[in-house]
Amino acid sequence: MWLQKRLTLSAKPRGFHLVTAEILGQLDELKQFKLGLAHLLLQHTSASLTLNENADPDVRTDLENYFRRLAPENQPYFRHTAEGPDDMPAHIKSALLGVSLTLPITNGRLALGTWQGIYHGEHRDQAGRRNLLVTLQGE
Amino acid sequence: MWLQKRLTLSAKPRGFHLVTAEILGQLDELKQFKLGLAHLLLQHTSASLTLNENADPDVRTDLENYFRRLAPENQPYFRHTAEGPDDMPAHIKSALLGVSLTLPITNGRLALGTWQGIYHGEHRDQAGRRNLLVTLQGE
Amino acid sequence: MWLQKRLTLSAKPRGFHLVTAEILGQLDELKQFKLGLAHLLLQHTSASLTLNENADPDVRTDLENYFRRLAPENQPYFRHTAEGPDDMPAHIKSALLGVSLTLPITNGRLALGTWQGIYHGEHRDQAGRRNLLVTLQGE
Repeated sequence: MWLQKRLTLSAKPRGFHLVTAEILGQLDELKQFKLGLAHLLLQHTSASLTLNENADPDVRTDLENYFRRLAPENQPYFRHTAEGPDDMPAHIKSALLGVSLTLPITNGRLALGTWQGIYHGEHRDQAGRRNLLVTLQGE
Repeated sequence: MWLQKRLTLSAKPRGFHLVTAEILGQLDELKQFKLGLAHLLLQHTSASLTLNENADPDVRTDLENYFRRLAPENQPYFRHTAEGPDDMPAHIKSALLGVSLTLPITNGRLALGTWQGIYHGEHRDQAGRRNLLVTLQGE
Repeated sequence: MWLQKRLTLSAKPRGFHLVTAEILGQLDELKQFKLGLAHLLLQHTSASLTLNENADPDVRTDLENYFRRLAPENQPYFRHTAEGPDDMPAHIKSALLGVSLTLPITNGRLALGTWQGIYHGEHRDQAGRRNLLVTLQGE
């Protein structure tokens, strides 16, 4: 059984955001799968999709502060600057963190660890909604 | 053909560990698949799962020493500190390296490159056993 | 429907290279899949496979200059040095960026975002051709 669906993630401020509920709220079809895999592709190059801690919101704040230092703006050697100082650092973060996840499905639910949640990393200062293409397969 | 199995990775000291044999030793079912994909999800947020060199153990030591510098402890801006100074750096490494792998299966074996092995990155100072959920599919 | 195929990526200079066309040119079989997933594994530990901006070539130059700084050569604590000063940094970049991609297929084409392309990161100074194992599945 195969199913493909285009979801939208709401526009968010720069930073890391827990979006497990936002995704599952648009993915009722998951219940049809007893065993399978869910593939998620964020179709952008200046945002990211990762798994991380779903409990303490400080983790998201600390991650944002860490990645601002890891990929700082206005490096003298940057040439791709026409779209603003936040753009090239956003491409770097997108490459480091990735834009795609493959997650197991068990009995109609994502089989994540107890503390795992899906993070939408928004790396632009002013971003609109983001497209997420979901592919479900299984039995 | 679909199959899902929960494996356990033994408790390990902080650092990078080659676990290809530890995983395959618990995955006899792989032999039933002529062609397919194996999906591995480490169900944790302070460890990681990656592919890297399977030969020289110095690569694992160098990686650990590199990542200790890339994501150092006790940064003044960290707010998520209640679980110890190694916890927030562990979440960062888990995000950077990832916790999931999808690997091709050919004739009952993982079709990795000659020099590729599966690494369990243990990023906590004191960690217990880790849960690995494996989903096999193919024909 | 399952299909596995070994592709070759041409030898490239150190840096980031857009290889969407090079891959699709060897993957006519994609047209047989109405809906599915394409899994790509670069079978090496000193190169990488990622998604990033497909338009401005400056992004690739900036990424190379950034990663040269993020994982510099000749660190005093490196022990894995027998294969040259570029080798251990290449393993680090391969771990950070990853060597595998899973991409959705819709109506015989990869369903990437408008600005997304596949990057081959070549992290060795002198590298030969690289092996890419592609696994297609779908209906």
